[in-house]
Amino acid sequence: MVKIGILTIGNELTTGRIQDANSALIARAMQEQGWAVAAMLSVGDDDGDIHNALDFLLGRTEAVIATGGLGPTADDITTAAIAKAFGLSLRMDDSVLAHVRDLFAKRRLLWTDNNAKQALFPEGAEIIANPTGTAAGFAVRREGKIVAVIPGVPAEARRMLPEGVIPLFRKEFPETALHIETSTFKLFGLPEAAVDAAMADAGLASLGIGVGFYPNFPENHLVLTARTATPEEASEKLLAAGARVEERLGKHIFAHGQETLEAIVARMLSEKRLSIAVAESCTGGLITDRLTDIPGSSAFLERGVVTYSNEAKIALLGVPEAVIATHGAVSAETARLMAEGVRRLAGTGLGLAVTGIAGPSGGTEAKPVGTVYVALADGEKTLCRHYALRWDRRRNKIAAAQTALLMLLRYLAGDVGDDG
Amino acid sequence: MVKIGILTIGNELTTGRIQDANSALIARAMQEQGWAVAAMLSVGDDDGDIHNALDFLLGRTEAVIATGGLGPTADDITTAAIAKAFGLSLRMDDSVLAHVRDLFAKRRLLWTDNNAKQALFPEGAEIIANPTGTAAGFAVRREGKIVAVIPGVPAEARRMLPEGVIPLFRKEFPETALHIETSTFKLFGLPEAAVDAAMADAGLASLGIGVGFYPNFPENHLVLTARTATPEEASEKLLAAGARVEERLGKHIFAHGQETLEAIVARMLSEKRLSIAVAESCTGGLITDRLTDIPGSSAFLERGVVTYSNEAKIALLGVPEAVIATHGAVSAETARLMAEGVRRLAGTGLGLAVTGIAGPSGGTEAKPVGTVYVALADGEKTLCRHYALRWDRRRNKIAAAQTALLMLLRYLAGDVGDDG
Repeated sequence: MVKIGILTIGNELTTGRIQDANSALIARAMQEQGWAVAAMLSVGDDDGDIHNALDFLLGRTEAVIATGGLGPTADDITTAAIAKAFGLSLRMDDSVLAHVRDLFAKRRLLWTDNNAKQALFPEGAEIIANPTGTAAGFAVRREGKIVAVIPGVPAEARRMLPEGVIPLFRKEFPETALHIETSTFKLFGLPEAAVDAAMADAGLASLGIGVGFYPNFPENHLVLTARTATPEEASEKLLAAGARVEERLGKHIFAHGQETLEAIVARMLSEKRLSIAVAESCTGGLITDRLTDIPGSSAFLERGVVTYSNEAKIALLGVPEAVIATHGAVSAETARLMAEGVRRLAGTGLGLAVTGIAGPSGGTEAKPVGTVYVALADGEKTLCRHYALRWDRRRNKIAAAQTALLMLLRYLAGDVGDDG
Repeated sequence: MVKIGILTIGNELTTGRIQDANSALIARAMQEQGWAVAAMLSVGDDDGDIHNALDFLLGRTEAVIATGGLGPTADDITTAAIAKAFGLSLRMDDSVLAHVRDLFAKRRLLWTDNNAKQALFPEGAEIIANPTGTAAGFAVRREGKIVAVIPGVPAEARRMLPEGVIPLFRKEFPETALHIETSTFKLFGLPEAAVDAAMADAGLASLGIGVGFYPNFPENHLVLTARTATPEEASEKLLAAGARVEERLGKHIFAHGQETLEAIVARMLSEKRLSIAVAESCTGGLITDRLTDIPGSSAFLERGVVTYSNEAKIALLGVPEAVIATHGAVSAETARLMAEGVRRLAGTGLGLAVTGIAGPSGGTEAKPVGTVYVALADGEKTLCRHYALRWDRRRNKIAAAQTALLMLLRYLAGDVGDDG
């Protein structure tokens, strides 16, 4: 089995200022390719430390992926340190320099000469393009081993890994060029240990299927991986394994593959030519923020209102003052009237509303922090559900927005539920 | 300076199933003690890999903190691997065994004999108590160096580190009681390289001050670190260095320390007893989402509206249809009327509005994607600024929300600007 080393570089890591997200990202990608990660090492922006780290990793692996320290500033020394460790000089790459200058011009950023540093590479290095940022990556070889270096910015690393590094490594290690296919199930409402327990007797290992669990608050992602000789074989195995997942966890699965909850909802609203208006209280705009992340959301989202005050609930949603006085701003009655009111006033097909107590204060014995009501009105009926969330303020907001979007999804899928 | 190595052990790390949180936690604690983390290494549950990792770290450091692999199951081999690497045999500790049995009885868990494994330690090891779990830690010494081992469960590590490991290390390295202090400056509107270039001649190194740049879209954070014998000396040095930062970058600094933009704005609104209402278009609710992350935001935030349609701008904000028809929904005129309208209808002291084109489509030659107008009305005057952002949809939303909150901050600080 091909062994890989991961090296993440930066004082922000060794001082604990930033938690390394790239190592896990890379480890997971290597695992999917059928390559084993032998060690993951983090060192600061120090020439000698980088050299020692490379020696340690190259002594135990066939290839190393390094991230970080490729920026323009004085503390970014990765390229120079690796060139020195390999006994290579640095040379300017004119096309990368042009790309960096071009990005600066496009973004109307002030050019400073230290940016040219990002076009310096060890002689003989292969450039790994950075489609979204200024710091390109590169790969150098020594004694049949390969070191690939990409930026530490997670968004850039996430893209350069599959587009640049993995294709390079697959050419390098052709004997491992199996067909690899993954299948992702996105779940909500079950803790990781419960997902694990539910899958314990599914026998996926005997099917030759690898299973990974990835918590991604408030979601849990379950990823099946098939490594086979042909694409057909992989699809067949994933189909069989996927059926066992659906059997055990079906009602908690809301999405497959890379699609986000908001993207599915947006697609279904567009398909059904339905418009929507949203009334938020404790989620503070997070629902419309997620919906408007979808390009073209103006086609279905008419308006959102964040009615933090009772006056706003009365003025913008027509919730009678008496209902708030009798049942409280956080109640099923208010949630229903918010959904109906925003729908009526916006003239949309649907009205979605959330009211709740995000915390840390504001809770009572009858309605503790985390109490949330979600309501959905379509002009004929109004659904309402109650939730008791148990997180901190930010995560209560995130989980409440998730439950609201899920209620909308279930409604659009014809799978309605009501307990309010 | 005392150098520390961190070793995290577990297949869940090298396969990317779990993101290592312990390394950053430990690194931060070491940093606070004035000890430098030379390297952080993760390996799987493998005897040889653990041995190699220990050798690498002990060759470069005075002490190693290892976590993970102390549980009862067959794949937990850390204790045996470290004993083997140090040439020590294992012995049962009766008091730990009694503690583990006691925990099982208290929690009414079924006792299985593999749990006794957690009371096995290398001969001569010092036990590090685990007040909350079954797996105790331990420390062993070799040639003046020390290796401390604690469980990988973050909640247990978080407690055993300050209660067990650090007191042990402080006895070991009494001479290192340095004082360490940091000072953080949060910047917006300057690329990382420009920050670096501006600071190039500040001579902070000659003051004995360390400088780090940490991009955190859309912000850049600059962190100064002083390591001195006394707190007074650290404060004095940071004061001098901070003055040089302010001199060079002052107008781009919007916050100091850990405070967030929304927290500062919330504090200033509360201090001035000012209420606010927000009208958002392209930011889709992100401004109110950030404001409502602050506990108690209902005291100053009366409402938010996400007026995605022209109809909503007319109905909820009173923007005249003719203005939208003449100048467009994305214009300084519309932004001003949105801010004035939301303020008037909400009856608040301030009205904040954003309209723009987040992309990827919807741009024109005159108003390309990224065109954003931010307006702030206080009843006497209405400020308006135009921005040309150059990111993707999500980042345009984030940057637009940031510019709006910054405009509000500058207004509240009495530092007003208007170009619309």
